[in-house]
Amino acid sequence: MPNIISADWKLEMSTFARQTVNPHRLMVETSKVVPNPKKKVLTLQLGDPTIFKNFQHPPEAIDAIKNALVKDSFSYYPTNGIKEAREAVADYVSKNGDQVNADDIILTSGGSSSLELCFYVLANPGENILIPTPSFNYRTWLHGPGIISKTYKLDPTKNWCVDLKDLESKIDNKTRAILVNNVGNPCGNVFTKEHILDILEIAERYRLPIISDDIYEHFVFPGVEYYSVASLSKNVPILSCSGLTKRFIMPGIRMGWISIHDRHDALKEIRKGFTQMLGRNFGPNCTVQKALPEILQNVPQTFFDETVKKVQLHAMTAFKLLKNIKGLIPIEPRGAFYMMIKIEFENFPKFKSDLEFVEALTEEESVKAFPGGPCFDFAGYFRFVLTVPLDMLIEACQRIQEFCERHYMNINEIENFEPVQTQEISIQNQINKIEIAIY
Amino acid sequence: MPNIISADWKLEMSTFARQTVNPHRLMVETSKVVPNPKKKVLTLQLGDPTIFKNFQHPPEAIDAIKNALVKDSFSYYPTNGIKEAREAVADYVSKNGDQVNADDIILTSGGSSSLELCFYVLANPGENILIPTPSFNYRTWLHGPGIISKTYKLDPTKNWCVDLKDLESKIDNKTRAILVNNVGNPCGNVFTKEHILDILEIAERYRLPIISDDIYEHFVFPGVEYYSVASLSKNVPILSCSGLTKRFIMPGIRMGWISIHDRHDALKEIRKGFTQMLGRNFGPNCTVQKALPEILQNVPQTFFDETVKKVQLHAMTAFKLLKNIKGLIPIEPRGAFYMMIKIEFENFPKFKSDLEFVEALTEEESVKAFPGGPCFDFAGYFRFVLTVPLDMLIEACQRIQEFCERHYMNINEIENFEPVQTQEISIQNQINKIEIAIY
Repeated sequence: MPNIISADWKLEMSTFARQTVNPHRLMVETSKVVPNPKKKVLTLQLGDPTIFKNFQHPPEAIDAIKNALVKDSFSYYPTNGIKEAREAVADYVSKNGDQVNADDIILTSGGSSSLELCFYVLANPGENILIPTPSFNYRTWLHGPGIISKTYKLDPTKNWCVDLKDLESKIDNKTRAILVNNVGNPCGNVFTKEHILDILEIAERYRLPIISDDIYEHFVFPGVEYYSVASLSKNVPILSCSGLTKRFIMPGIRMGWISIHDRHDALKEIRKGFTQMLGRNFGPNCTVQKALPEILQNVPQTFFDETVKKVQLHAMTAFKLLKNIKGLIPIEPRGAFYMMIKIEFENFPKFKSDLEFVEALTEEESVKAFPGGPCFDFAGYFRFVLTVPLDMLIEACQRIQEFCERHYMNINEIENFEPVQTQEISIQNQINKIEIAIY
Repeated sequence: MPNIISADWKLEMSTFARQTVNPHRLMVETSKVVPNPKKKVLTLQLGDPTIFKNFQHPPEAIDAIKNALVKDSFSYYPTNGIKEAREAVADYVSKNGDQVNADDIILTSGGSSSLELCFYVLANPGENILIPTPSFNYRTWLHGPGIISKTYKLDPTKNWCVDLKDLESKIDNKTRAILVNNVGNPCGNVFTKEHILDILEIAERYRLPIISDDIYEHFVFPGVEYYSVASLSKNVPILSCSGLTKRFIMPGIRMGWISIHDRHDALKEIRKGFTQMLGRNFGPNCTVQKALPEILQNVPQTFFDETVKKVQLHAMTAFKLLKNIKGLIPIEPRGAFYMMIKIEFENFPKFKSDLEFVEALTEEESVKAFPGGPCFDFAGYFRFVLTVPLDMLIEACQRIQEFCERHYMNINEIENFEPVQTQEISIQNQINKIEIAIY
């Protein structure tokens, strides 16, 4: 037996692991940036409204799980989920205007698993899926096995509508699907009926299915109308991904689902693909599956209405306060939990990127937010989470104001000003930057 | 807008989906074989002891989950799991004899996710992981992204020990890990200390880490000694995968874990790989995470002892009954939930494979079992589940006896007998056969 030296055991991570990056979690769990010890940390990062206990889960949901937790409640369930739960989801989904039944529903361990399933069943390494920018970190799932993400732009000057020309220009013969996120994270975009029809028209022309990330479905502020993509699609097959996490304020419950809205039998093979993939046991906890019908039926509309109203109050408050800060342009959201804020870099010559901006904001003001470039593939912005308690939100705005006032410079006063690159910066460069900062 | 015809929308599943096959679930959920309508169906397929309610979950575990299910219990947790739960798992795992701490533990959504994580972090497409034959369907996770499974033999004539020469002969320069399953499914193998040391010696010589599938850890019949692979490893880094499902009789709870037993700092990069991959949210339900410390601490040793004793009684009963059936050779298990039974095909010329044998058994006797070839990559055998109620188990044995007596032929009486191929049959052929039968 030879002597062992540690160099002998150089095990390397796989390409799958190396290419799998969740910038949100990396920033939350491993960032080395030290907040100002003199100021209480205000965390506006994760979309979890329960952290500060100002938003609560519906008590009906807790009761439902308690009821499900009876003797012999644990058991292996079918890989697509227990039938009663799938029926309940089918009823819930059908209320959006497009009828589905239990066979069209797949239960998954959280919304993210539902997205992952759609991605991995539809696309091969080297093929691409179109995703919006800004957007949630869909790349975390796509890039691991080598699926390419191509981005189409949302326009902050037009209520974050899809830039349709840009969308169409990104389609090529390796495109397998268009991902649409409405209501959207991080923008709080809510698309009009007409706009959704325009997107559908493009998908139809190119015979592309839509993956509709509907995790924030119905989460629109009073006065704004909500249409699900599936309800407006005559010809385009839709895979809608949703779950309990956001609308039901149950983060961490890991109960998501896919509803399959087929058209022209286009998804026949894809359904088989789901069956194959489900052999890997993406399924959610069996108690929660058992509780699902009661949760979906018993949580009253008032719960949703009150949650949305409260978030809207936060949104309006933050928007007003941030609008008055020189050098920042908040973009008013129409739903969901977030607001995007544009940084006018010409007035902050000290900062070369949104990452530098938010890192300094943490170091000086102990306010933590996600930078647009690394986290949402949309440089020049940062995301503000609206679900923190109102007093914390107001204090965060005040600290951001002080921070901006301290660093703001009138562009005319700056000698040799060089405009900063605020366009789309390669996500890989941004990720590398975070990783260098972390490891 | 052109007219839509369905041929326009020919969407194909990805290679990942096409290569992902779980023969167990396919057989359970989609088999078209019709049982004999005159006989009550006896299902001896899935390793879920709760189906017939003769095995129950520990009441302490249910209480723990109820306690965890208090107001504001839902929340996003760290991607590797909440710290209290990881600490509790570290204590639990350390009792096996190798000390780990909370940072060495990753909580996953079920034991299968823990295996998946290990596979995908260690191996690239085209590289291979050595798995035993017979074995659980590790291929379901490996083959999707193109990781190759190479099999090494367990020897039914030697208590299902690893054929060490065969193991060593399968190692090549693309081998990234050896998977060891002790206590094992489907064989009920329990390796001796000396045998585990022999396996470790090979792994050490080739500088290969071991993925130790420990989901049946400690599940050994009275009088048999259990050693964990990690506890005996001086130099070989071990990734141990386990969870609540089997030993705690909680199938469907989706609470698994990896414990990282590093040696010589070999797993430094692999730990980083896990962190990257966990950004995809493999995490378990948060209530169960919160309940985990109480579950691990409060379930008494008597619960485990009684469960094991009961399964042993079933094993001995079935073994005795099956041993007397001409044409079958049951292999006595030393732990876990299962027994493998060899079919002496020379006496059953009607059947060309174990799949045909078990299909006929279902059609004639309404007894359902998993065939060795398609389900465990070990042709010529079938698996018998020991955790069904004793009367059902006895009836199943009786029906199997009648079935065998009906089809048994003395080899000397058969004209033109051609021996049937009972060696390793290509798994892909077997899978194709199932798929043809199903779709």
